[in-house]
Amino acid sequence: MDKKIAVITGDGIGPEVTRQAIHVLNAVAAQFHHHFHYEYGLMGADAIDKTGNPLPDSTIELCLNSDAILFGAIGHPKYDNDPNAKVRPEQGLLKLRKSLQLFANIRPVTTYAALQHLTPVKAKILEGVDFIIYRELTGGIYFGNKTLSADGNMASDDCAYTKNEIERIAHLAFQAARQRKKKLTLVDKANVLETSRLWRKLVREMQSQYPDVSVDFLFVDNAAMQLILNPAQFDVVLTENMFGDILSDEASVLTGSLGLLPSASIGNGGALFEPIHGSYPAAAGKDIANPLGSILSAAMMLDHFGLKEEATKVRLAVQWTLDNGFVTKDIDPMNFYFTSTIGELVADLV
Amino acid sequence: MDKKIAVITGDGIGPEVTRQAIHVLNAVAAQFHHHFHYEYGLMGADAIDKTGNPLPDSTIELCLNSDAILFGAIGHPKYDNDPNAKVRPEQGLLKLRKSLQLFANIRPVTTYAALQHLTPVKAKILEGVDFIIYRELTGGIYFGNKTLSADGNMASDDCAYTKNEIERIAHLAFQAARQRKKKLTLVDKANVLETSRLWRKLVREMQSQYPDVSVDFLFVDNAAMQLILNPAQFDVVLTENMFGDILSDEASVLTGSLGLLPSASIGNGGALFEPIHGSYPAAAGKDIANPLGSILSAAMMLDHFGLKEEATKVRLAVQWTLDNGFVTKDIDPMNFYFTSTIGELVADLV
Ligand SMILES: CC(C)[C@H](C(=O)O)[C@@H](O)C(=O)O
Ligand SMILES: CC(C)[C@H](C(=O)O)[C@@H](O)C(=O)O
Repeated sequence: MDKKIAVITGDGIGPEVTRQAIHVLNAVAAQFHHHFHYEYGLMGADAIDKTGNPLPDSTIELCLNSDAILFGAIGHPKYDNDPNAKVRPEQGLLKLRKSLQLFANIRPVTTYAALQHLTPVKAKILEGVDFIIYRELTGGIYFGNKTLSADGNMASDDCAYTKNEIERIAHLAFQAARQRKKKLTLVDKANVLETSRLWRKLVREMQSQYPDVSVDFLFVDNAAMQLILNPAQFDVVLTENMFGDILSDEASVLTGSLGLLPSASIGNGGALFEPIHGSYPAAAGKDIANPLGSILSAAMMLDHFGLKEEATKVRLAVQWTLDNGFVTKDIDPMNFYFTSTIGELVADLV
Repeated sequence: MDKKIAVITGDGIGPEVTRQAIHVLNAVAAQFHHHFHYEYGLMGADAIDKTGNPLPDSTIELCLNSDAILFGAIGHPKYDNDPNAKVRPEQGLLKLRKSLQLFANIRPVTTYAALQHLTPVKAKILEGVDFIIYRELTGGIYFGNKTLSADGNMASDDCAYTKNEIERIAHLAFQAARQRKKKLTLVDKANVLETSRLWRKLVREMQSQYPDVSVDFLFVDNAAMQLILNPAQFDVVLTENMFGDILSDEASVLTGSLGLLPSASIGNGGALFEPIHGSYPAAAGKDIANPLGSILSAAMMLDHFGLKEEATKVRLAVQWTLDNGFVTKDIDPMNFYFTSTIGELVADLV
């Protein structure tokens, strides 16, 4: 198989973790006789520093002409605390999601026995936890009209959703549920929001097309509790953009380390794979970041290419490193290996 | 002291838990020679059933003419799943908050040693946890303009904030921090939302008026993780309406039972006290609901009246019941006491 992969290493620890994912992809390519071609593009604070633009047109072009995108991380504190900043790194990622219509962000929540001592929750809470979050990614309050009054005393963000935006991701979520435990949970705030009532109505109407999937509805405040009280109840969780941002990060605590969680963003115009951790600037360049989130994102990319066996190999290699104590500093601060060592080890194991 | 208290028992388990809080208030009145006068008003599904209106004008009138409001719970599933419902119970509560300008919802997060076995988190996570959430309650996406297109294919909810709305609650939160551990955490999504950037800018500007309070800023997705990973880091958490709804319910899992958590909603026109649990229709009328959330809300009301000694007495009585195993079914399903028994016991102890 021949694939062209756009690589956007981005900010902070992005470059060093992505490098390890590429090591692993190369090992897969060598062993299974695939050809992966990488081309590099700029985005985020890195792109602002070099071009003044968080997402240069050439990067969009590159992504549109690739089979998939491997992305590192975005963000730098110097922009977060400057309310007057005209350009922000995150605008690059948001614009990329929109330009490529990456409307579904998919985050599996998996637990690892070897990391149980790191999670804040009790062992019994984690029994049977295995769910996946489908977060809408190109609509809602992220992309609605924003205003700031001339005197700076009033601001607004509009949250809007159309039938089409809701149904296309809901179909993906229903289909995923079919392949899994056949349960879909829509998280909304239908007792307060008009957009939530539209989500609830449309998802309810779609139920008849998926009679084998059982559907339930949870208010977002309740969902934020249930994710910690009883996460084993979930199979596929479907929700809008802002709620998904909050709940998927919250769910990451179940795993024991944010550094391990991959995500895929898919849609009409492409597919982007990235670890859910941020740019973690304090660790940048120190070779201490956890590359497994990026490596497992590459595994999701292999799945997306239809390379199931290859993806499984990568996941088994990751599992082996964890089970045998080959871990980065976030997992064991006393006894740890470097980012690059873990990356090479996973590549070798593959 | 002479006080007029508006009592809105509301829906589901609201009436039975509120009744116990009133028992306790009566015990306080008797012992400390106060006079509490209760007048009852309708709100929620109960009010819709009886008057067609989730908040009759007479209830607003009653509340405006009272020193404080004791409220039970709101909501009924028959409205949640009807996207075409014209009136909804929750509209009553939202309208009351707005009419009385109850702009600050205050939720203390306390842990109880006797309930540690019930929390989903490990004991070491709970060490030193003692914080309070200040949630803005009359602005943001809850109250912004809502639209639904004529063909029903597009919906929107506007989120808006003004300088005044932000500053008035921020002042309360800064003042609370001053009385506590002197740390304020603003939770926002300033990397995406214009309203969040306004919150961040104004709170940063206000810092100079409270030089003894240290301020930090957290994105809401990160906050959702930190609340579970390291809740002891927080002292006063300040946030907007929707984020506060989600995070305060999430934080409730630390306590071990939602049934125990009180809240106060204060503002210019009054003060409302309510347990954070919902109407829990499945338990209604069975005398099994936990009355402590309502009783502790009454304790917050006593604080609000300046009756510190009285409030402390109530809290000590609650603590005693927990420590001695006098608990409701939510706490110990094998060996439990009735709602009314616990209420009477707390009243007797006072
Ligand atoms: C960086 C930020 C804009 C982004 C988001 O909020 O979507 C991130 O938190 C994420 O979840 O991918
Ligand atoms: C009942 C509902 C409208 C309400 C809210 O969302 O504010 C409740 O969840 C709360 O937190 O008081």
